[in-house]
Amino acid sequence: MILNLHNPSLLLDEAQCKANIFKMASKIGKGCLFRPHFKTHQSAQIGQWFRDCGIDKITVSSPAMAHYFIENGWRDITIAMPFNMHWIPFVNSHAQNVWFNILVEDEFVLKKCMEEIIFPCGVFIKIDTGYRRTGLSPEDSLEINNILNFFRQKSRLKFMGFLTHAGHTYKAKSKDEIIGVYYNAHVLMSMLKQKYIEDFPELIISYGDTPSCSIAEELNHFDEYRPGNFVFYDLMQLEIGSCTFKDIALIVLCDVIAKHAQRMEIVVHCGAVHLSKDSIEICGKRVFGELVSIKSDNTWERLTERAYMTSLSQEHGIIQTPEKIFNCIKIGDTIGVIPVHSCLSMHQLSNLR
Amino acid sequence: MILNLHNPSLLLDEAQCKANIFKMASKIGKGCLFRPHFKTHQSAQIGQWFRDCGIDKITVSSPAMAHYFIENGWRDITIAMPFNMHWIPFVNSHAQNVWFNILVEDEFVLKKCMEEIIFPCGVFIKIDTGYRRTGLSPEDSLEINNILNFFRQKSRLKFMGFLTHAGHTYKAKSKDEIIGVYYNAHVLMSMLKQKYIEDFPELIISYGDTPSCSIAEELNHFDEYRPGNFVFYDLMQLEIGSCTFKDIALIVLCDVIAKHAQRMEIVVHCGAVHLSKDSIEICGKRVFGELVSIKSDNTWERLTERAYMTSLSQEHGIIQTPEKIFNCIKIGDTIGVIPVHSCLSMHQLSNLR
Repeated sequence: MILNLHNPSLLLDEAQCKANIFKMASKIGKGCLFRPHFKTHQSAQIGQWFRDCGIDKITVSSPAMAHYFIENGWRDITIAMPFNMHWIPFVNSHAQNVWFNILVEDEFVLKKCMEEIIFPCGVFIKIDTGYRRTGLSPEDSLEINNILNFFRQKSRLKFMGFLTHAGHTYKAKSKDEIIGVYYNAHVLMSMLKQKYIEDFPELIISYGDTPSCSIAEELNHFDEYRPGNFVFYDLMQLEIGSCTFKDIALIVLCDVIAKHAQRMEIVVHCGAVHLSKDSIEICGKRVFGELVSIKSDNTWERLTERAYMTSLSQEHGIIQTPEKIFNCIKIGDTIGVIPVHSCLSMHQLSNLR
Repeated sequence: MILNLHNPSLLLDEAQCKANIFKMASKIGKGCLFRPHFKTHQSAQIGQWFRDCGIDKITVSSPAMAHYFIENGWRDITIAMPFNMHWIPFVNSHAQNVWFNILVEDEFVLKKCMEEIIFPCGVFIKIDTGYRRTGLSPEDSLEINNILNFFRQKSRLKFMGFLTHAGHTYKAKSKDEIIGVYYNAHVLMSMLKQKYIEDFPELIISYGDTPSCSIAEELNHFDEYRPGNFVFYDLMQLEIGSCTFKDIALIVLCDVIAKHAQRMEIVVHCGAVHLSKDSIEICGKRVFGELVSIKSDNTWERLTERAYMTSLSQEHGIIQTPEKIFNCIKIGDTIGVIPVHSCLSMHQLSNLR
């Protein structure tokens, strides 16, 4: 017996998702490589839609994700996290059939990889172009040289180039600022390319993040692009200005379980375990999602007045609504919420995996 | 072949967890009922440790959780969320063998349940004693009476009493304030009991939340207690003052993948998909977890200087450390993090389910 437990669920706009994939794939300049980040969807089915656009190289952020996509036939995978030495057995178990690119920013890790990885494998040096999460400063010539020296001798590992994630676009206050981040990263990464191309003629520079890849008019400055979130977009991208409302391809459906007229709040069965707890500030308020209206054909529309999810506990969500909307919503209704961060909501609720 | 994907994992101190269960069970007054909330652990194995303490009635917060524990032999379950009418088929599919208590705060929902639930089942009225998430105000006699009137005629559903969750203890600034919340809830709930006990002589008042149940010296004011988090505790409870460091029974293990000396930051493979993204403010900073030192016997110790996780993305976590600690930690080390909210970390990482 299959029980309907009536949990919150995802509603995917397949046509929009495919349109987002096609649009990004078309935008990547000729001669540039599109290596989308699959952490956003973690879905074999959506992966197939990328294949249909000619994509055969992907980015993931853990061995677990790599393993899943290998099982679904992907054979060229960048694991876009500083490489964890404990992942060497995983890489060795697959690298005979799969081309992995790994990220290093530390000599000791690279040395260990060179000693213990037993199949050919690519290595990017992770560069920090301003996000300040991981990576070497592009000015840290000493450490970059130390790492590159390892590749001046014969090795199963191949130096692929420099890779950066400009995650600071998520904190930008305007589209111009995002474009600024993009071009600044380009200057820094191009300098590195210039500096080392003679010694490593095949080296490439790889760049990824959805805000700048969505806003930039042309994507032909880097050799490789790795955006991920654009496949769905979400409320954060909408607020940043990386997408329009129409571009959003994924919402969460959940049921109204209580209403409180004194506070103009509706309570839904949808909490941190469903949406995740990423938030953004809108008009000085912490927001976890935006209410949308669901139409009979399972599409959704933005409300004329905004109604935001303002509180989330493990299984409850609270949506603050204008009076007119409050009065239209009944207990038992299924409503739609645009998640703040679609990658995390997908991770929480996906049954496509 | 079983691959070790070297994901972040949970480390449970079984002895401490059992001690926490035993301590809470022993503290509940004679004649009072202990109906622990199982949303914290969602684990059949830990459920068994409760059984060993004589517990046979539990609380959950979704049909999915109820379903899991029914499969593990539990037969008396309160679903502590405002009841979703769409759960009626689920209740009907099990209620022949299971005693469910459901929560209502709306006449329309109750009417539908009375019409459509085909087996005997208990009903609590959810009361808001100050948390302002769900429930009727104890002063809303009109609505309470309207709901109670349904039980004055013959029905398969039985009125069980009044239930509250004093979640506002999580926002309290002192132990005294928490105790204040507890006694205030007791006054409000007792008034309701007094008012309706004549008409419903078996009605009980049910109360739950870990901070007050941990701090109150005696738990004999309510007829039923439903705390949940105490089974593990966490950084939030430690900061509130509900537990000591020693009481914490669950941490997350993860690997160091990068170090950045300029910022005194270590980067771990442990992000929002592992820890969840609940946070607290400590000394004006947003904190997602606290670093602890792991000893060779798999126990853990608090550091003399604190080091907090200050940033979390999907798979990365950043821990800000004092210099002395920074210098002791090597890339590749497995470190321990006390989660801010153990219920959510358990949900993300548990393989006990």
